[in-house]
Order: sequence, then structure tokens, then C-alpha cells
Amino acid sequence: MNSHILLIDCEDHEGLIHKITGVLYRNNLNIISNGEFVEKETSHFFMRTEYSGESDEKAIENELRALLPQGARIKLNKKEKKNIVILATREHHCLGDLLLRHYSGELNANILAVISNHEVLRELTENFKIPYHYIPHKNISRQDHELEVTNTIHQYKPEFIILAKYMRILSTEFVEKYKNMTVNIHHSFLPAFIGANPYLQAFNRGVKIIGATGHFVTGDLDEGPIIAQSIATVDHTQGVEGMVQAGRDVEKIVLAKSLKLVFEERVFVSNNKTIIFD
Amino acid sequence: MNSHILLIDCEDHEGLIHKITGVLYRNNLNIISNGEFVEKETSHFFMRTEYSGESDEKAIENELRALLPQGARIKLNKKEKKNIVILATREHHCLGDLLLRHYSGELNANILAVISNHEVLRELTENFKIPYHYIPHKNISRQDHELEVTNTIHQYKPEFIILAKYMRILSTEFVEKYKNMTVNIHHSFLPAFIGANPYLQAFNRGVKIIGATGHFVTGDLDEGPIIAQSIATVDHTQGVEGMVQAGRDVEKIVLAKSLKLVFEERVFVSNNKTIIFD
Amino acid sequence: MNSHILLIDCEDHEGLIHKITGVLYRNNLNIISNGEFVEKETSHFFMRTEYSGESDEKAIENELRALLPQGARIKLNKKEKKNIVILATREHHCLGDLLLRHYSGELNANILAVISNHEVLRELTENFKIPYHYIPHKNISRQDHELEVTNTIHQYKPEFIILAKYMRILSTEFVEKYKNMTVNIHHSFLPAFIGANPYLQAFNRGVKIIGATGHFVTGDLDEGPIIAQSIATVDHTQGVEGMVQAGRDVEKIVLAKSLKLVFEERVFVSNNKTIIFD
Amino acid sequence: MNSHILLIDCEDHEGLIHKITGVLYRNNLNIISNGEFVEKETSHFFMRTEYSGESDEKAIENELRALLPQGARIKLNKKEKKNIVILATREHHCLGDLLLRHYSGELNANILAVISNHEVLRELTENFKIPYHYIPHKNISRQDHELEVTNTIHQYKPEFIILAKYMRILSTEFVEKYKNMTVNIHHSFLPAFIGANPYLQAFNRGVKIIGATGHFVTGDLDEGPIIAQSIATVDHTQGVEGMVQAGRDVEKIVLAKSLKLVFEERVFVSNNKTIIFD
Repeated sequence: MNSHILLIDCEDHEGLIHKITGVLYRNNLNIISNGEFVEKETSHFFMRTEYSGESDEKAIENELRALLPQGARIKLNKKEKKNIVILATREHHCLGDLLLRHYSGELNANILAVISNHEVLRELTENFKIPYHYIPHKNISRQDHELEVTNTIHQYKPEFIILAKYMRILSTEFVEKYKNMTVNIHHSFLPAFIGANPYLQAFNRGVKIIGATGHFVTGDLDEGPIIAQSIATVDHTQGVEGMVQAGRDVEKIVLAKSLKLVFEERVFVSNNKTIIFD
Repeated sequence: MNSHILLIDCEDHEGLIHKITGVLYRNNLNIISNGEFVEKETSHFFMRTEYSGESDEKAIENELRALLPQGARIKLNKKEKKNIVILATREHHCLGDLLLRHYSGELNANILAVISNHEVLRELTENFKIPYHYIPHKNISRQDHELEVTNTIHQYKPEFIILAKYMRILSTEFVEKYKNMTVNIHHSFLPAFIGANPYLQAFNRGVKIIGATGHFVTGDLDEGPIIAQSIATVDHTQGVEGMVQAGRDVEKIVLAKSLKLVFEERVFVSNNKTIIFD
Repeated sequence: MNSHILLIDCEDHEGLIHKITGVLYRNNLNIISNGEFVEKETSHFFMRTEYSGESDEKAIENELRALLPQGARIKLNKKEKKNIVILATREHHCLGDLLLRHYSGELNANILAVISNHEVLRELTENFKIPYHYIPHKNISRQDHELEVTNTIHQYKPEFIILAKYMRILSTEFVEKYKNMTVNIHHSFLPAFIGANPYLQAFNRGVKIIGATGHFVTGDLDEGPIIAQSIATVDHTQGVEGMVQAGRDVEKIVLAKSLKLVFEERVFVSNNKTIIFD
Repeated sequence: MNSHILLIDCEDHEGLIHKITGVLYRNNLNIISNGEFVEKETSHFFMRTEYSGESDEKAIENELRALLPQGARIKLNKKEKKNIVILATREHHCLGDLLLRHYSGELNANILAVISNHEVLRELTENFKIPYHYIPHKNISRQDHELEVTNTIHQYKPEFIILAKYMRILSTEFVEKYKNMTVNIHHSFLPAFIGANPYLQAFNRGVKIIGATGHFVTGDLDEGPIIAQSIATVDHTQGVEGMVQAGRDVEKIVLAKSLKLVFEERVFVSNNKTIIFD
């Protein structure tokens, strides 16, 4: 089936849905699903439409642009698997889960490569026939290390970069270069426990619930737009290690859920928030 | 603010969204929120639109009918509180929760009266200044009892009848008379534990999670369209009474959630399922 | 049934469970349920035992003290309803829920009085035949207002003070006076969104889950030992008001859950954390 | 560390905890954690103790037996990884998740082999260096197929058999032979949707929550003692395939959770229920 995903966002005006669906209707395209939202604070309109049928994408886009307010963003793509590169450090659970979903065809993405600053995950990755790049960070400046990472990413031209427990802080340049393209899993219920060792922080605070957060990466550490969150209950019998363990399942499920939404192009970013059509 | 809710369901055709939103656009009405769904199995189209602006409801409906496929159902109402009657038996938690939400203005409905086959809940109800009708079921046939209940309901002309732990089985006549107007809270995670004593059944089965289900009432006991469900975890230390206790909070929250959806006209019934725009 | 609750905490030593249960065994007391925990970081032992049978409480306590390490804390009480006073401000849902649970006999406590800095909740409270004290905070110093509150509390000699959305900050003196006796419901998932307007903070941060936290009150705002937490999912369609609304049900359920644990004496406080035997 | 797990269940008598902990105390063994439960309906006592220290297991058992009521069951083991064999059919997610947890050292068990009636999962299994036995069920009687499966299991002498989406019904003989040793993941919230195609059943019933259940296998299909359950929310937009997809994550997490409890010997079976010390 020839499916397309149309994303539009623009200033809110009267009649937008009528006009946009009119373009699809006149081109004999069939709407499969449709979602609209107006953000009150900004008077901004968001719409995601999945449609099927034969269409000249460029022509559709031109017809739409003629009807929409100035400054409208229009994104029109075939519904396809995304190309991604994964960055990881030492932990198996998130990377392994993505490799498994990729292997079974469930991921909705092509994993082009895995990049890590350690060798630990090479065997796991290569078992699944995915290229593994070991880029050590020792005896090298942070800048040079990141340059090598960037060069390696560059050769794959991915649409998204996934941080599957990549435990290195990224420079503002890196983050800006891959803006709205980089998804991270943070092992806490943001904005609680920003930064290092969130499980230790959670243990010390004596919380009864821990969580994980999938978010786009921005220049501010752990402050990017949140895509998905989930939680697990804990109690006083669990030490830090028990929380880490309980957290692993939450992390991998939330990361996978975030990626499903992103890869199906269900996520708009507005200021520092997400608008999600699911 | 002059808000309306427009509900449409009909055979799926191309261009429906375009045509419907066109009517609103030409009448200078402003869409506040919009949801559409096509049920694949039946090729049936459902749409719920909330709009604001000055409109002649009858004219809008006529314009719409001219554009829609034959047999289309159109329901167009001012956004208003619903009028309801509550039936209950002996338990406080669901009725009490509804009375409280009504009192604080959160319920989105006017409670016109409470009807019960016991006297237990009179004081609670009358404390909130709501009329209480005690209709005992003893020494009277099931048919006569129900007739009296129906007559009492009739004098209030409610739009919805809420069974807030009403522990009497209703006749097919009653159910048909108030079809898609009667909402029940069942104290299990349907379709598990249909019928009497679901917590005892759950205890005997040794489940680790219990639940509650808000649903429209149909002729088949506990088989009506499900509106909302929720759960609570339990363990071996909880006897039947512990499950009943844990279940109370789930029941009252699920009932309130179901009613919020129904009173805001977010629920379509298709065959024996619900389509919910929330 | 003549039930008692025995709480012991002391330095961890070998044989503690054996020795403690020996005292109960020799006195022909029957253990109904039992929980023990050793906190590794502090090498501290905690035990909660519920037992039935005829016992001279003072004698039991003396026998226990002779066997336990120096500095052991022993608390031995009949299993009884607790006496409480509730402080509230303007919101109905938490107070109303507690009044309802009290009315139906589910609360495990006697509500002796409600104190508020507004008149809004008087009618609701008095409908349930509970004394209501209006202590306005306007045109009076913070200190004088709190003094009047304290004097009013004092006349009831409550075992616990419940802050059911009491929106005034309490002085260190107040908090110290009622240490481990004051339970608050905070309308966020602590430690996220400490302080004022947590729902506005949550909205601005674009979180996908909101929460509530029941905790003991200490001198540091919203930093006391956490008893229970729970969450609700939210999305981009909910404004601040939608989050406030969704949060109400979480708040009242978490407060009730926290109180159930506290009133059944299931909660130890160790440093700034809770150890809970449920 | 030299850790042991002691499991005792017997008729309830007074002083059992005192007597049992006395044996450990006199042998200079140090209790790490302890749980007790009395099932009221059967007046039966259950206790799980984890202790450390040098001990002659046989001597401890004899001392205990001398003190305990007749018919007491005593199980005393070193805390060790369990040996398991996994049966699967065609689906990747549960098997893959267990292979990953095994690979990263998180599983608390040694996977000795995977047996399947299809070839689909061979590559995945062998990538992780685990023996794979393909035992086709075509052109062979059910009895002969099961005999071959049993023979293959037999050569590994596993302590537990895990059905990770094994889609064949097992004979009563098989089930009896491996009683309380066989754990299954059922893809519904039991007892809802017993038998084949639970997601289709769930879709047809229009439920708003789906679930999965980890349970011991008994002669009655999907009727064995429940170990763990969990759920995921669904809505009208998800067809059967969407539910299957959403269900996969729940299934693998619940299976892993059930196995963690079983492998750490935290689960007693009493009649058809589980008593779990976690």
C-alpha cells in the first residue's frame, strides 16, 4: 500500500482542516487517520494525516502551500522505515532490546551501526550482524572524541541518532547539529533527578516510584522535550542496585515506545514540549 | 462561551472531513477540537467536533444532512451539564464520590435524585440536598419493584441513569427502554468474573490484579459496551475483604472516569464496543 | 478480638527475631502477622508484629527491653482507631474523600475536627457532623495565626494532623512540635516540582505523567519522608486546568493510602525515609 | 558470600517463628531476610528465610524437623542460579528477552537449551551460543512429538521448564511429570480470555486494557497458579494486530518478573494459588 504521512504546522486560522483535507480530496487521496491540535498559548495549529493513494508529492505540497498561512511548515513523506545509528556505552538492556526488535522486524527502523566508547557491546551487536564502531574516549580530548563520533555518524547519513544509555555528555555543537534528530533515554522520571546517578539520588530521597524518560536531546542536560515516560514501584527493601535492576525494564520499554512514536512521525516539537498524535 | 458538540456517524466515504468542516467554516464556526475514526471492519465513519460561535443548530444539521450519506446520524447539542438519576443499593463509596463531585461542581451533571432499594444511603444523600427515593424490593414482585423504579425515574426525565453499585438485576425491558443511557460500574475486570461476587471469584482464582469496569448496560449481564477499565494490584495477604477494600477506590475512579467521557459526549457505541474521543 | 501492634527498632544483633518472638510465645500470644527489615546502611533492625491474646502490655515491654540492645525503641499499642485533626484550605476533593471514608467506617480514624483558613469547606464538613474551625489568616501575623491553629489542635489532643491540601506553609516550630505526626499530600511526584504551583510547573515542562506524594512533614518544604506516591498519565491536550483535574483523583487516593499505612502503624521513619510493612 | 534459602511450610502452630529462628541462631547463622505467612483458610504456615554463614545443611534440616509439626516440608538450598530449558514456537520477543537477560547475567538461571517445533528461532538462539533443538510436530502423533520433547528435556536435567510462547498444548502426563517446575506466559489477563487467540477475543469484546499472566502449568489449560500479571491500556484505534504488538512488551516483562520470583525461590504453591515473598 502506498501510504504517506503529511505533517503541517502553522499559525492557527479558520478553515485550515477544511482547506487541507480539500487538497487531499481533490487529488483522490484517502485519509487513513487524522489528528489536529491547536496550542492555545501560541495559537499554533498542528496536523498529522496519514493517507493512501497515488500522489505527486511536490504538487501536493505546492497546492497546500498556496492555501496555508505564511511560514507554514509542511513535511510530506512516504511511510517508510527510518535509518538510525545507535550510541551506547556499556549497558546491554536498551541496546539489546533495540537489536532484538530490529531483528524481528518490529522496530520500524534500520539500524545502520552502533557506536560505543567501550568494547563491551561489540559481541552482542555483531551477533546481530550490525557494524560496531569502538571509539575510545581515553587519552584523547573530549573534542577529538566527539569529532570522531561525528565523522562515523556522518558516513551513515542517519535520520535519527539514538542514545541507548550513552553515558557521555554531548557538546552543544553536536546537539545543535542533530537537533530534533537525537533521542535519549534518561533513567529517571524527569525533571526529578537530573544528571548523574539518578538511582542513587532516588534511593537517598526514599521515593516509592522510579521512572524513565525518553526525550529529544537539547543543549541543556536532560532538559529536552519529553516524548514518553513510565514508572515502576519500589520499596525500602530495594537498595540502589535493586532500583537499577527494576529501572532497566522501564528504560527499555520507554525508549522503545518513544522511538515508535518518533519513527512513525507522530511527534511535533513546539518550544520545549511535544505534541503527539497516537 | 457558546460551545456545541457535533457527533456524526455514517458510512465511510471520501471527503467526509472536508465536507463536514466546510459547513462549519462557511457558518463562521470555530473548531475547538476534532476527532475522527473509521472502523475498518464496518467501513463506518465517526466524528466528534467541538466548536464555538453563533449557530442555528437546525440549519447546520440540514446543511450537513444534505452532504452526508443516507442513514447518517447527526447529533448536535449545546455543551451542557447532563441530567441524571442514580440507582444504588447499600455501598457508600461510588454514590458518595459522585455526590462529592456534584457538590464541588466537578461532575458535569445535575444529580436529580437517588433511588435505592435500601434506606442505608438516605442520610448521606440528603446531607447533599438530593432527593432520595426508597423503593424496597421485599414482599413485592420483581416486576412491580421495577415498575415503581421506572415510574420514579420517569418523573425526573433524566438523560442518563447511573448504576452506582445497584445490586439488582434489571429486566430486558428496562435495559431496552434506557439503551445507551444506562451506565454501570462492575466490580471486576470484565470479561473476567462476570456475575455475582467477583472479588470472591478473584480470591479463589488467586489473581494478582483486580479491576473494575464502567460500561453501558445491555440485555446480557455484564456484557455491554465497555467505556473504561482500571486495576489495582493485590497479593496473597489480602483476603476477600482486603480485595473488596482495594477494589472500592478503583470502582469509584473508573465510574467517575466513565461518566466524564459519557457526559462530555465523547463516547460512540458501535455494535458492542465503544469508540472514545478523549 | 484483642489485637495489639508491636513496633521495635534497634541496632541489629543476631537472634533478635528469635528473642522477640520468644517473649510473645512464652506469654501465649498468637502472631497474626510479622515483618522484619534490616537497613544495611545503618545496621538498624525494624520489626512490626501484630498479635492477639490477653497480655499485660507493661510486662511484655519490660521483658522485651531486657533482651534488646540498649537504645531500642519499643512501641506497643492496642489496635485502635487513631484520633486525628484535619487542616484544609479551599479544595473539596481530599477533605471530602476523608469525610466520606470516615462516615462509612473505612478510615480507621476518628476525625475530631477540621480547621481551615477559609469558610468554603464548612458546609461540607458540618454535613458530616464534624466540628469546623474557621481561623482566618488575613489581618493577622503568620505567627499569631499559627498560634491559634495550634491552640485549636491542642484542645483535641489528636494523634495525627492531616494536611488535606492545606495551602499555608508551617513554621519550623509547628513542624517540630508535631514531628512524625503530620501527614501532607503534595500535588506532585516528589522530588519533582517542589513548592508552589506544581501543575503549572509540570505543564511548562511538558511532562507525560503527573503524580502526588503523601509524606510526613519536616522543616524542609516538601522534603519529608515519603509514604506513598502515585501517578496519572497526561498529554499535550491537557492544559494546566486539565492536569489539576486529573491530579485530584491521584491526590485523594494517595492521601488515603498514606493514611491507611500510618493509621495501621505500618510505617517506620529512618533518617528521612520510610520503612513500610504492608 | 555463602547464602542459603530455607523454605518451610507446615500446619500452623504457636511458636513456629521462634523455634525456627532459634535453630538458625544456635548455629550462628545470620538471617538476611525473612518472610512468614499463615493462610487462614487452611491454617497453614509458610516461611522463607535467606541466611548467610557456614552450615551443615543436613544437620540444620534434622534440627528443624525435630521441632516442626509432622508433615512439614523443608527445602534448604544454596542460593544459586537455576538450570532451565526453554520451549518456544515462532515468536521472538519472550525468548529473545530471556536470551538477552541470560547473556548480560541478569537472568539468575543457566539456559541449557531451547526446544522448538519450528526452525524460526534457531539463528537467534545460536547467536547466543545456546543449543537449539528443532522437534517438528508435523507428520507425527502428538504423543510421539511430546515423547521426543521429553527425551530432549531429560538429557539436560533442568530444574525448570519455561514456556516462552510455546503454542502447543501439553498432555496431562507431561504437566504432572514437571509439576511446579513448568512456567508459562499466557497472553491475557487470566481468567479472561482462556485458550486460543486471546487478543482476538479481547478485540471482539472491546476491552480497554489487555494483560499477560505468568503461571505454573497444570493439567487444566491456563488454570494453573498465577505468579505475576500485568497490563497495558488499549483503545478503539488498535486492531487485533495493534493489541498483539502492545501485548508483546507486557508478555516479556511479566514472564521475566515471574521467573525472577521463581528462580529466587520466592514462590510457594498452595492449592491453586501462589504465596509470594518479595
